[in-house]
Amino acid sequence: MKSSQEGDAPTGRGDGRKRQEILAAATERFGRDGYEHTKWADIAGDVGVGPTALYHYFESKQHCLYEIMGDAIEEFRARFVEITTNERDPARALTAVMVNSFELTEQEVNRNRVLVSEQGRLSRPSAAQPEEDARQAARARTRDLEFAWASFLESAMRAGAIPKSDPRLLTLAILGLYTSIWHWYRPTGIVPLRHIGEYFSRLALAMVGASPDGLESERSAA
Amino acid sequence: MKSSQEGDAPTGRGDGRKRQEILAAATERFGRDGYEHTKWADIAGDVGVGPTALYHYFESKQHCLYEIMGDAIEEFRARFVEITTNERDPARALTAVMVNSFELTEQEVNRNRVLVSEQGRLSRPSAAQPEEDARQAARARTRDLEFAWASFLESAMRAGAIPKSDPRLLTLAILGLYTSIWHWYRPTGIVPLRHIGEYFSRLALAMVGASPDGLESERSAA
Repeated sequence: MKSSQEGDAPTGRGDGRKRQEILAAATERFGRDGYEHTKWADIAGDVGVGPTALYHYFESKQHCLYEIMGDAIEEFRARFVEITTNERDPARALTAVMVNSFELTEQEVNRNRVLVSEQGRLSRPSAAQPEEDARQAARARTRDLEFAWASFLESAMRAGAIPKSDPRLLTLAILGLYTSIWHWYRPTGIVPLRHIGEYFSRLALAMVGASPDGLESERSAA
Repeated sequence: MKSSQEGDAPTGRGDGRKRQEILAAATERFGRDGYEHTKWADIAGDVGVGPTALYHYFESKQHCLYEIMGDAIEEFRARFVEITTNERDPARALTAVMVNSFELTEQEVNRNRVLVSEQGRLSRPSAAQPEEDARQAARARTRDLEFAWASFLESAMRAGAIPKSDPRLLTLAILGLYTSIWHWYRPTGIVPLRHIGEYFSRLALAMVGASPDGLESERSAA
């Protein structure tokens, strides 16, 4: 995870390591207990600092949430760009992205859950400045991710690798389908993530109109 | 919209007409300004009663939200059952359901937006009793909707109308794809709902493995 405010950031908010610790603790609390039910002071306790010291790093609980969301979205984009740059064949790249999207640590699953259950907050302006800046940044990263996907799909359409349609709507459909999983998926459930990933990857490829042939070999190579 | 508490309900909460007025006003506020940013007193003002009188109908803003969500989910289920009972051919029934899912009034679009942006709340227990009862009821209705879909898909698979796979995961995928639309769709956007409905119906049929052939004739007949 790379944050634009990592290290000694322009805003001067704390050092990178402690900041990452706070983000990790907050992600776990938000994912497990819900954002609203999480107390800022409990996060402070998790990382062994007083509640006041927390304000050295984040303006508020909301500020912290927006940073978590922005980082998660940026990481999705970076992974996507890396895979689609390394694999020039559109169908194989698409398959590789799908497989990669389900290779997640427990913390990443938790972060996805936070992202989807709180995504509605990104559409409502915040009255406080650092919060509003972080919200705008997360929204800009969402647009960047969508743009990367739509550009990729458009190239694949032009190359004849997938049927022509509206690349932007197709992007929203793929991201929407993927996002929906984290509303109901629980690590303790009876269906393993590997199986869900396989099933939903096939569905996404069917939506795109690409063959699912590469899915098996791609997964065993991963 | 049919609510189980319409008329003189067992809980004795108010008469049906005023209750529906409150639900409509709350849906509009929640959809436009967001649930958190809506004041209970403003809803009272919209329907011309004092804030105290509102408690004759609902225990709290949260109680009202859960009732709106429960009603919306129940209406989806009732529509689905009606269509799939009247049309015995699975592929044609599926197409009819898709077309119907996008024939929405402005208020229904608004309600869908409330449903998706607040759906995370349904997974967290409420401390107060009437709220918790309404939350449990909305969750039970969600399970009923999912069960109706999965049963239908399972029959269609057995009849050979669509390829065999996991009907429950396929249900979650279809509902997840549909739900995702209301996160980004705005009536003021450049893409008309009719076009979005057409596009996403095709994607859903592609996921299911059904032919999109019936989509045009079904839509012109609707």
